[in-house]
Amino acid sequence: MIQFQCDYCEGAHPAILELLAETNLVQQPGYGEDPVCDKAARMIRELCHVPQADVHFMVGGTPCNLTVIAAALRPYQGVLSADSGHINVHESGAIEGTGHKVLALPSTDGKLTAAQVEKAFRDHWGDATHQHMVQPKMVYISNPTEIGTIYSRAELTALSDTCRKNGLFLYMDGARLGYGLTARGNDLDLPAVAALCDAFYIGGTKQGALLGEALVITSDALKPDFRYMIKRQGGLLAKGWLIGRQFEVLLQDGLYFSLARHANEMAEKIAHAFRQKGYSFFIDSPTNQQFPILPNSAREALLRKYSFADWAKVDDHHTAVRFCTSWATQQSAVDALCADIAAL
Amino acid sequence: MIQFQCDYCEGAHPAILELLAETNLVQQPGYGEDPVCDKAARMIRELCHVPQADVHFMVGGTPCNLTVIAAALRPYQGVLSADSGHINVHESGAIEGTGHKVLALPSTDGKLTAAQVEKAFRDHWGDATHQHMVQPKMVYISNPTEIGTIYSRAELTALSDTCRKNGLFLYMDGARLGYGLTARGNDLDLPAVAALCDAFYIGGTKQGALLGEALVITSDALKPDFRYMIKRQGGLLAKGWLIGRQFEVLLQDGLYFSLARHANEMAEKIAHAFRQKGYSFFIDSPTNQQFPILPNSAREALLRKYSFADWAKVDDHHTAVRFCTSWATQQSAVDALCADIAAL
Amino acid sequence: MIQFQCDYCEGAHPAILELLAETNLVQQPGYGEDPVCDKAARMIRELCHVPQADVHFMVGGTPCNLTVIAAALRPYQGVLSADSGHINVHESGAIEGTGHKVLALPSTDGKLTAAQVEKAFRDHWGDATHQHMVQPKMVYISNPTEIGTIYSRAELTALSDTCRKNGLFLYMDGARLGYGLTARGNDLDLPAVAALCDAFYIGGTKQGALLGEALVITSDALKPDFRYMIKRQGGLLAKGWLIGRQFEVLLQDGLYFSLARHANEMAEKIAHAFRQKGYSFFIDSPTNQQFPILPNSAREALLRKYSFADWAKVDDHHTAVRFCTSWATQQSAVDALCADIAAL
Amino acid sequence: MIQFQCDYCEGAHPAILELLAETNLVQQPGYGEDPVCDKAARMIRELCHVPQADVHFMVGGTPCNLTVIAAALRPYQGVLSADSGHINVHESGAIEGTGHKVLALPSTDGKLTAAQVEKAFRDHWGDATHQHMVQPKMVYISNPTEIGTIYSRAELTALSDTCRKNGLFLYMDGARLGYGLTARGNDLDLPAVAALCDAFYIGGTKQGALLGEALVITSDALKPDFRYMIKRQGGLLAKGWLIGRQFEVLLQDGLYFSLARHANEMAEKIAHAFRQKGYSFFIDSPTNQQFPILPNSAREALLRKYSFADWAKVDDHHTAVRFCTSWATQQSAVDALCADIAAL
Repeated sequence: MIQFQCDYCEGAHPAILELLAETNLVQQPGYGEDPVCDKAARMIRELCHVPQADVHFMVGGTPCNLTVIAAALRPYQGVLSADSGHINVHESGAIEGTGHKVLALPSTDGKLTAAQVEKAFRDHWGDATHQHMVQPKMVYISNPTEIGTIYSRAELTALSDTCRKNGLFLYMDGARLGYGLTARGNDLDLPAVAALCDAFYIGGTKQGALLGEALVITSDALKPDFRYMIKRQGGLLAKGWLIGRQFEVLLQDGLYFSLARHANEMAEKIAHAFRQKGYSFFIDSPTNQQFPILPNSAREALLRKYSFADWAKVDDHHTAVRFCTSWATQQSAVDALCADIAAL
Repeated sequence: MIQFQCDYCEGAHPAILELLAETNLVQQPGYGEDPVCDKAARMIRELCHVPQADVHFMVGGTPCNLTVIAAALRPYQGVLSADSGHINVHESGAIEGTGHKVLALPSTDGKLTAAQVEKAFRDHWGDATHQHMVQPKMVYISNPTEIGTIYSRAELTALSDTCRKNGLFLYMDGARLGYGLTARGNDLDLPAVAALCDAFYIGGTKQGALLGEALVITSDALKPDFRYMIKRQGGLLAKGWLIGRQFEVLLQDGLYFSLARHANEMAEKIAHAFRQKGYSFFIDSPTNQQFPILPNSAREALLRKYSFADWAKVDDHHTAVRFCTSWATQQSAVDALCADIAAL
Repeated sequence: MIQFQCDYCEGAHPAILELLAETNLVQQPGYGEDPVCDKAARMIRELCHVPQADVHFMVGGTPCNLTVIAAALRPYQGVLSADSGHINVHESGAIEGTGHKVLALPSTDGKLTAAQVEKAFRDHWGDATHQHMVQPKMVYISNPTEIGTIYSRAELTALSDTCRKNGLFLYMDGARLGYGLTARGNDLDLPAVAALCDAFYIGGTKQGALLGEALVITSDALKPDFRYMIKRQGGLLAKGWLIGRQFEVLLQDGLYFSLARHANEMAEKIAHAFRQKGYSFFIDSPTNQQFPILPNSAREALLRKYSFADWAKVDDHHTAVRFCTSWATQQSAVDALCADIAAL
Repeated sequence: MIQFQCDYCEGAHPAILELLAETNLVQQPGYGEDPVCDKAARMIRELCHVPQADVHFMVGGTPCNLTVIAAALRPYQGVLSADSGHINVHESGAIEGTGHKVLALPSTDGKLTAAQVEKAFRDHWGDATHQHMVQPKMVYISNPTEIGTIYSRAELTALSDTCRKNGLFLYMDGARLGYGLTARGNDLDLPAVAALCDAFYIGGTKQGALLGEALVITSDALKPDFRYMIKRQGGLLAKGWLIGRQFEVLLQDGLYFSLARHANEMAEKIAHAFRQKGYSFFIDSPTNQQFPILPNSAREALLRKYSFADWAKVDDHHTAVRFCTSWATQQSAVDALCADIAAL
């Protein structure tokens, strides 16, 4: 079976394993208070043009999300999210587990608009019984979204403006940030993300690392005692430098972005093959996830050789599926797939 | 101003105050472990035909809801609710504050159907990634609902069957249960509710008591150590007998139901007056809450003399409003209102 | 049986029931946003000399404690308490239920000292691993304590100074505050308590009310959105005015304090009787709870006629017990008890 | 500086890095549902003689602790722990963050006795107000303890018997389990631990792995839906096989235990050197942590060349310190240290 199931099916970029092996016995202080993490944090601050930001190396995406949200909100406050947002659907209630409501807003493309946020804010405060309702205080977005779409600079700026005007924190889940920032049509970059968001993370797990995400906090209000929060939520890694080390490798000479670009190109080839075949798509995604709508027969044929995920049943005869590429996707695997698609 | 704002604007039925005064200096053990609560619990078990049920006297509706839900669910489980459900909208995140997600399902009449519950259950378990999602384990309904509608015996039986088949708890918020069980068209009664639900409460606050609700637990799985739960959630009243005493009065000779019937009749008169005038309704409610849609001019005219709540803006010229009657609503107040409606 | 079991065995002072009956049908807005609560809050601000304080009428002591603590602390922060403190021992984990650790400090007299607090604060911040430990941020005391002892003005001032110097909130549980402020040897009063604490409550449940406590918040940091917190924790009473009304009666013309003084006098008579008999005490309490150490035979003899609580087993032949008086304790009951003690 | 600061200062045993590199591009399903974890789990079940046990690979010790405890307890239940227990002191309130109280019992050697647990259990249920107190339901121990001491088979059996008799879960934190099971005087082994505990974890982070612990659940009551719990608490690693792979290496041919034995031998040499010098110890530890009491001058002299932790101030002239060895401690480093100790 050739895997297009997800973007975390392999270990790490070989350069990471090499450096880990080389430095394996260099002794380090625990819990991320080491020179390796310091250096990686410095690299991130420079790449993002935010010299005052705090950077925390986290073990995964859900720990990032629940720790940031629990740190940012007062007990009666909630976080606005697209209804398809990861925190609303796929974290087994991790956010609610910290005591906070996810205030879901409808979205067909996985994104939130400034207008939706503005309305949710006004609806709350304009209601005479607002003290009986969860107070919106943070906006959660992912970029790319769960379905591979990306925010434009104009969209993110509008969201950010709305949030700042209304005293809402803007937080971006960047599990696949590299894939987004190197996508066809993207006009955002790290400095823009850092300038427009109060916190965001640069995903490692899905983009070349064994594990780990780099959480960047630019808002002073979110900084104090954040390490206490990480520890309290169970997310403080003893050997913190292991994640710092990986980001050191990924951020050197743009490796992170070249890996992401590769994944996007592989995805585009796959999309092209389906499009050539006349298949339509569940959503138009410019990133490493592609959602073609397959006739059942085609789906079954491909499943014999390839692993990919069902996404949504479209009708009795068609299913939207997800093909996922990654930094590790082999050109040969994609070529084989494209040939098989053409031959359907 | 004449109040039609809500159904908890007055104190208690005078018979309650009289008995409280009479028995004021009779010494009782604390925390509801007293003969008064015992007697009231016995009355409830008899009225409901559930000799084995546990009865707890609670200080209010939100404490009932959050304590039952937190007691019933494992940390990763959630409660299905209509999107308009009180726990989803008007409890400031009290349920999430206990660590649980409210899994909101769309509803236009405030009710959930057995089919919706069945689908939500299957959707969860049919999804390969279900371990990443909140597990549905309880169904929350209110009867009457937030917008005054009621469940028929057939509907509640279907819900109950679906829940039992799938191992879900069925819990009914009965803040206004009396108004529901005496409504035009109602075919439920206390024994049916007790037989079909795993837990429910008989609301006192909105139906003649100073404060207090009688929580009835019929499911053996929900009974153990429930008093620990009440205490842990801050809901254990020191002078528990005060609530037991009130239910003793209300349940004597059907007072509870005759008070509710009065409120429904008053509401029907008001609805009739609006209907005569040709106004339509936001929803057809057979209980003590009525939701006529008023032209702005009519709304403003009535607001000069009466207090009532805005419910939803219908269009630029019309607003759905809520007129609420109660056990304490005066015939004269309703007559005045009806005359003013007719004269609009 | 004559009750000396606790101080919440009776209903309310008759004047309260009378006013509740008189005003029973006066319509009020819900949730404590009514003129009755406004008036009672004004009375409290005046009695406490804190014109800017926020006053919230709460249904009980545990709801006060958990709501204030959850509102004051960040998730990784804890509350310092005497190990015998109510929040540490008798609230079924209600504080931990809001996610916060109770940091218990040893105490033999139920009180905390400024030196203990100072040391706990320094120990935390002086430890290199402090980010792995719960950060102390609030000090919880009760006055009188669980065992009837009281803080002197000097002690409370020292605690308050230490707290302010170190950025800790000082919160006083005043479930029996009246009994404390009218005790033999007391040199505190409401203005002193209000000036020295960031928040405290004036207990009603144990001092003449049916139910309810008046929570006074003097610290600006604790004020914002506190009503959201109350609702989220399930403590917002629909008919909030019922508690306001009771405080209106109790605070009128010093009734609250004269009721408390009566209880203390009754307690002193009982203590005197035991002392005359040569019995020693578990602790020297100047308030309405007395803790004589009884030979087993005396304990059994008294239990035939009186109800009182075991407190601690002292040795095989002696048990410390608790006799509790209240605003409602009858002179005749105390006389009977004293005679029986003398006759032991 | 030569590190004796802690036992997680280096990466992983080289054999681990080699296997990770070799298998780096082998595609695996996510979240620990892969053949690598299956194999490692099988090895553990065999080594422990518990064919029915569930094994979960966790990212760290705190995630193990908080997830097991939150899964085992009902909201009003707490976990008994030595006052020096890791969950009571060094997890920033992570347990309370899941809503549960840590019920601390005094201990001078870091261990709990069966008698203490029995008494705590009886004290709770023998108290008439037990419903107002946190119900003890689990016992948390660590082996070795925070101060390096170990449980004998007799002690653990007695604890286990007491727990089973009283319906308490027994959970062992095995962050340093290997060091314990290979210690001088130890008479426990994995099958005994598995037979006597309801859950425990085999620590990887401090014993040769990059990161990761193997949580073993033998109690059927703790098994259902545990993966939901892990996800909900933020502890589900995307590339779960990375931890499985490391345990595969460590458990092959007893590597885990030979690494631990080495650390213990190194520690014993250090202890011997201090003993020779006439220094006494804070506690007698047979494992990889040693707690000599140093005169201030000796402490300062050693700090110039070695890194180690202060543990407790003994008096103005003496400090108890901690020297920690690990699987990675070099013989040469220990020789240098011993020479310097001798020369003090």
